[in-house]
Amino acid sequence: MAKVAVVLSGCGVYDGAEINEAVLTLLSLEQQGATYQCFAPDREQMHVINHLTGEPVAGETRNALVEAARIARGDIKALSALNPGEFDALLVPGGFGAAKNLCDFAVAGDQMSVQDDFLSVARGFHQANKPIGLICIAPVMAAAICGAGAQCTIGNDTEVAAAIDAMGAQHLQCPVTEARVDVGNKLVTTPAYMLAGSVSEAYAGISDCVKEVLALS
Amino acid sequence: MAKVAVVLSGCGVYDGAEINEAVLTLLSLEQQGATYQCFAPDREQMHVINHLTGEPVAGETRNALVEAARIARGDIKALSALNPGEFDALLVPGGFGAAKNLCDFAVAGDQMSVQDDFLSVARGFHQANKPIGLICIAPVMAAAICGAGAQCTIGNDTEVAAAIDAMGAQHLQCPVTEARVDVGNKLVTTPAYMLAGSVSEAYAGISDCVKEVLALS
Repeated sequence: MAKVAVVLSGCGVYDGAEINEAVLTLLSLEQQGATYQCFAPDREQMHVINHLTGEPVAGETRNALVEAARIARGDIKALSALNPGEFDALLVPGGFGAAKNLCDFAVAGDQMSVQDDFLSVARGFHQANKPIGLICIAPVMAAAICGAGAQCTIGNDTEVAAAIDAMGAQHLQCPVTEARVDVGNKLVTTPAYMLAGSVSEAYAGISDCVKEVLALS
Repeated sequence: MAKVAVVLSGCGVYDGAEINEAVLTLLSLEQQGATYQCFAPDREQMHVINHLTGEPVAGETRNALVEAARIARGDIKALSALNPGEFDALLVPGGFGAAKNLCDFAVAGDQMSVQDDFLSVARGFHQANKPIGLICIAPVMAAAICGAGAQCTIGNDTEVAAAIDAMGAQHLQCPVTEARVDVGNKLVTTPAYMLAGSVSEAYAGISDCVKEVLALS
């Protein structure tokens, strides 16, 4: 039975982990016979966004680990406790949290940096030849994790696709209900809510992503 | 195509709507051919709980509608805008939000009151002979909504089951993967995370609950 580390980045599409993607990742892992442990970085989120208005909340701060614990029903650990040697694969749901709290793509675009703690963990999986699944916007970190030439999806956002190519990765077209595999890098990616118009569309793509990750583990 | 109103009560098992239950309700509705609109009460939550520690956060307030918008990706309306005449059925996921923000069962037990706005909406569905699905802890409101004799599940928590009976409803045994139907009241209930040990168990029961609600609509 594969044991998978799932890295969350808060709780909510505009400032944290996309909630549907996170839940559907956990559901898919269970349905396909894997076990999992959730992790998140123990630090302040880049933003707190009012999800009703879409506007930043002035003066409010929230911690990505404490908020991600809402998705995990409290069963979550700090990212600093994640040892790639103890897991068979890594999965990262999207949401702006992936682009704000794991890296700074949301503000820096193709000049972004990946947070040291997440980069170290993700490269640990890659260097150990263990599969990595990046969902939604998370593939903007593909080149930083796997190196130049890494192949990944993003959906049909031409600006983000161009940024991915500019950072040295190679963007792949992919329908929302499927995932794509870079076999050499054991990297699996799916567009999810970069394209999804419904929960069931996101579920189909994430389920396929989980299937490919488990097949490589 | 049935059109279902889903009432959320925040975002997070300990102070709002249980996130997995909410997402799995929306997924099940889509998979079974229904459309939905999410609603939540536009007022301060009873509590803000740190989901990592389980402790209340002193001095912090959050609005149930603004937080529930995280689950609904911003596509949510105030409960005051919910007209039962525009929908075929009502579904209410659980989490402590149902017992703190829709009623006060979490602190008052069988002496609880249901919030006026939610009670008015739910009774509107009931009086129009439209089906209502209550998930997890939400069935503690069954007697208040449907009147004495309403039959509902809660799981195997004997204290909560006794409170349900004391309020005039009748507790039904039900495994986590199923739902139970009070045909006369068109009331469908399922234990979900009152019993569930995994996301997929909750999914099975909620999917059955949605099936029965749609069959009655």
